Amino acid sequence: MRFSYIDLIGYMAAFGTTISFLPQAIKTIRTKDTSGISLYMYALFTIGTILWLTYGILSGSWPVTVANAVTTVFASVILVYKIRYK
Amino acid sequence: MRFSYIDLIGYMAAFGTTISFLPQAIKTIRTKDTSGISLYMYALFTIGTILWLTYGILSGSWPVTVANAVTTVFASVILVYKIRYK
Repeated sequence: MRFSYIDLIGYMAAFGTTISFLPQAIKTIRTKDTSGISLYMYALFTIGTILWLTYGILSGSWPVTVANAVTTVFASVILVYKIRYK
Repeated sequence: MRFSYIDLIGYMAAFGTTISFLPQAIKTIRTKDTSGISLYMYALFTIGTILWLTYGILSGSWPVTVANAVTTVFASVILVYKIRYK
């Protein structure tokens, strides 16, 4: 009982941090306004999510794998726009 | 041996995604340029990292706790600047 309550918080956390990059990706695609966005952040963050994805696959953790596959897509889109429209 | 190799990838991933918000926070504080930054992203992301922090404390995971305590600070600073200088 105690474990499912903690797990629920973990799933809500994973959902929140993953889905948060969707409104940023939509805003960046629509406005192409990347002046305030840090190139270093998205370069580091995209490398980080690819490492998380690798960790998820190697450790057999589906929540980590799925969440970071989705986040890698969103972060890569923002990174490409930052490089292209800086 | 195999486990420490996977764990190393996990620690590198945690370090990368955590530290990535530092250059964004520095850029935002210096330039106050938040026009391209999504309010919804940082509102959702900050809630997400607070949930991760709660999950880390309740599940007794120090890496999750420490990484998300740091990320919550960086994300909160960016969120406050976005609200103040939008």
